[in-house]
Amino acid sequence: MSNPIYSLQVDLPASGVDRSYPIIIGHGLLADGERFTELLGDAPVVLVSNDTVAPLYLPRVRNALGKTRKVTEVILPDGEDQKHLMSADHIWQQALKDHHERRSIFIALGGGVIGDLTGYAAACFLRGVDFIQLPTTLLAQVDSSVGGKTAVNHPLGKNMIGAFHQPKAVLIDLDSLLTLPDREFAAGIAETIKYGCIWDSDFFNWLVQHSDALRGRSNDVLAEAVQRSCAIKAGVVSQDEREGGLRAILNFGHTFAHAIEQTMGYGAWLHGEAVACGMVMAAKISAARDQLSGETVAQLEQFLASFDLPVEPPTEMSPEGFLEVMAGDKKVDRGKIRYILLQSLGEACLVDDVTIEEIAQAME
Amino acid sequence: MSNPIYSLQVDLPASGVDRSYPIIIGHGLLADGERFTELLGDAPVVLVSNDTVAPLYLPRVRNALGKTRKVTEVILPDGEDQKHLMSADHIWQQALKDHHERRSIFIALGGGVIGDLTGYAAACFLRGVDFIQLPTTLLAQVDSSVGGKTAVNHPLGKNMIGAFHQPKAVLIDLDSLLTLPDREFAAGIAETIKYGCIWDSDFFNWLVQHSDALRGRSNDVLAEAVQRSCAIKAGVVSQDEREGGLRAILNFGHTFAHAIEQTMGYGAWLHGEAVACGMVMAAKISAARDQLSGETVAQLEQFLASFDLPVEPPTEMSPEGFLEVMAGDKKVDRGKIRYILLQSLGEACLVDDVTIEEIAQAME
Repeated sequence: MSNPIYSLQVDLPASGVDRSYPIIIGHGLLADGERFTELLGDAPVVLVSNDTVAPLYLPRVRNALGKTRKVTEVILPDGEDQKHLMSADHIWQQALKDHHERRSIFIALGGGVIGDLTGYAAACFLRGVDFIQLPTTLLAQVDSSVGGKTAVNHPLGKNMIGAFHQPKAVLIDLDSLLTLPDREFAAGIAETIKYGCIWDSDFFNWLVQHSDALRGRSNDVLAEAVQRSCAIKAGVVSQDEREGGLRAILNFGHTFAHAIEQTMGYGAWLHGEAVACGMVMAAKISAARDQLSGETVAQLEQFLASFDLPVEPPTEMSPEGFLEVMAGDKKVDRGKIRYILLQSLGEACLVDDVTIEEIAQAME
Repeated sequence: MSNPIYSLQVDLPASGVDRSYPIIIGHGLLADGERFTELLGDAPVVLVSNDTVAPLYLPRVRNALGKTRKVTEVILPDGEDQKHLMSADHIWQQALKDHHERRSIFIALGGGVIGDLTGYAAACFLRGVDFIQLPTTLLAQVDSSVGGKTAVNHPLGKNMIGAFHQPKAVLIDLDSLLTLPDREFAAGIAETIKYGCIWDSDFFNWLVQHSDALRGRSNDVLAEAVQRSCAIKAGVVSQDEREGGLRAILNFGHTFAHAIEQTMGYGAWLHGEAVACGMVMAAKISAARDQLSGETVAQLEQFLASFDLPVEPPTEMSPEGFLEVMAGDKKVDRGKIRYILLQSLGEACLVDDVTIEEIAQAME
C-alpha cells in the first residue's frame, strides 16, 4: 500500500451507523490495489467516469480493483451539461442490468460533475449504497468531493435535485493534477482561495505568496494547498453537515456564481470560473461596507487574474438579471436572497440585505 | 383541534436533529386546520395527490391549510404505473416554478403510490425538505406511510430508486376508509394480517375472529386494526430504520409479491393483492418445513379469500419465472435471494435456501 502524505478524518454524528470517513491525500493512490482491497473487501463496484478522464486513469483503477471483482463501468460524456437526472438514470439502468446489490459500491472517477452525479446515483440506488470519491480535478479535490453534497442540475436551477450522502472515503491522487488542463486547474484554485477568504487569513496570504509555485504546479505547494483546503472543509462540514448554519459560508461567491452559470448555460463558464467572479463581487460589496480593505480586494483580484480566471461578470448580465435568477436559488429563505460576505479577511458573514445598487457597484 | 383516538411516536436515533415523529389516528384529521397550523407554522406547502383522491379530499385539506399559506397543488393520474422518475420530476418542476424553499413542506394526500413518490420527491428537492403523510387508503395507513421508505419504480424493478426519508408526521384519518373501493380496502387488509403473521399471533387470531366486522368496516374494529398495525411497524422501524436486519421481516410475502407485480405489469395486481398471494406461498413453504401448522395456513388463506384477495399466483407464472425476476430484487445478497418465512405463527425468520421445488409446491 502506498504511503499517503496526509490523511484526515471527517467526523460526523452517528445515525445508527458511524458515518465518519477518511480523506487520504498522496501520490499513486489511483493504482493502489491494496488500499482498494482494504476499503472495498470483495464488494462489487459500479465505476463511473467520463470520456476525458477514463482514457487517462480508468485502466490503472480497473487494474487496482483486481481481476476477480465484478465491475460495471459507466462512461459518460464530459461536461457540466451532463449533470442531469437522465445521466443518473443511465447509471441506475446499467447497475440494475448487472444485478448490483445493496453491498455494491459506486466509485466516482473524475471531477465535480462525476462526483456529484455518482454520489446522487449512489444515494438513491436501492435507497442508498456506499460510494467512494476519486477526484481527479483540483476543484473536486479541494471542494466537491468532501462533505457529502450530491446533486444533479435541473433546467430550473443548479444542484436543485440531490441528497446529503457522505462518501465512504475520498482518495486524492495528486498525480492527476499534472495532466489537468490550465483552465480546469485555475477553476480549482478559485475554490482554494475561497477557504482563505472565509476561514483563514494566513492561508490566504500563503496562497498569494505562493501563486507562482502554484501556477508551476509544484508538488509540495500543491500538496499543502490541497490538504489545508480539505482540513478547513472537513472542519466546517463536521460542525454542520446539512447546512443548518455555519456550512453556508462555503457558498462565498456561489450565489452570484450560480446565477452566472445558469444564465450563460451550464458548462459555458466552469463552476470555479463563476466562483472566482462571484467572490470578487462579494468581496467588493464587503469592502463597500467597510468590512474589507481595498488592498485585500485587489490582492484577491490579482491572484485570480494571474490564473486567467474571470474577475468581471459576463457583459450579458445586468443587476436585474442577477436578482431574477438568484430569486430561484436554494439559498433563498422566506423570499429573501441570502449572501455570504466577508466580515473581515478570514471571517465570513451571512446577510440578506444586499441592494441592487450594491450589486451594480460590484459589477463595475 | 379534533381529538385523536390514538397517537404514537416513531422513535429514531438522532442525527444532528431529532427525527422522531408522531403517527396520529382519528376522525376528521384531514379537515383539522389547527393541527396543520401546529405542524406547519406558516411554511409554504407542495400538496401532491391523484385525480381519484383529490376530488374527494383535496378541498377539505386545502381549506384546513388556510387562505394565506402558499400552496402548490400537483395532481397526478391515479395508478402504480405513475410511480416513476418522471412523476417525481414533474413535482420538482412545479415546486421550482413556484420558487419553493428549503422550509417548504411537501404533503402526500393519497395511497401508497402518492406517499412513496412524494416522499422521494421531498427527499431530493433541494437535497431534502420535510414532508407529511396523509394516507387515504388502508394499505398506506397501516404500512407504506410509516417508516420512511420512499421510492419510485424503475422499468428494471420495483422501488429500485429511492431514499430513507422519514416524514415529519403521519395523520391517519379513518373517515377516508369509508369511501375506499372494496378492492383497495382488501389490499390493505392483506398488510394488516402480515403483522399478525410475523409479530403477534394474538393479533392474527383477533383479525381472523373479526373478519366479518372488518369487511363491514366497523369503525371500532378498523380503528383497532390500524393502531395495532402501526404500533408493530413503528416498533420494528425504531429498532432498524435502514433494514440492516430486523426490518426485513416486514417483507414477509413481498419477495414473491414484487415478482408478481413486475411480471404482470405494475398496476395489474394491486400491491396488497400480490402480497396476499406471496404470504400464502411463504406460509406454505414454512408449513412444508414443519414450522407452521396446516391449520394456520388454511386460516390465513380463508381470511384473505373472504376479502376476495388472490391466494394463488397468476397462471402465467412458473417457478422458473419467479426465480428469474426475484434474482433482480433489492433483497438479493451475494447473489442469493433472501426470503422471509415464518418460524412459527407470530415469529418471522430470514432464509436464503428456498429451492425451486419448494416454490413449485407452494404454487399448487
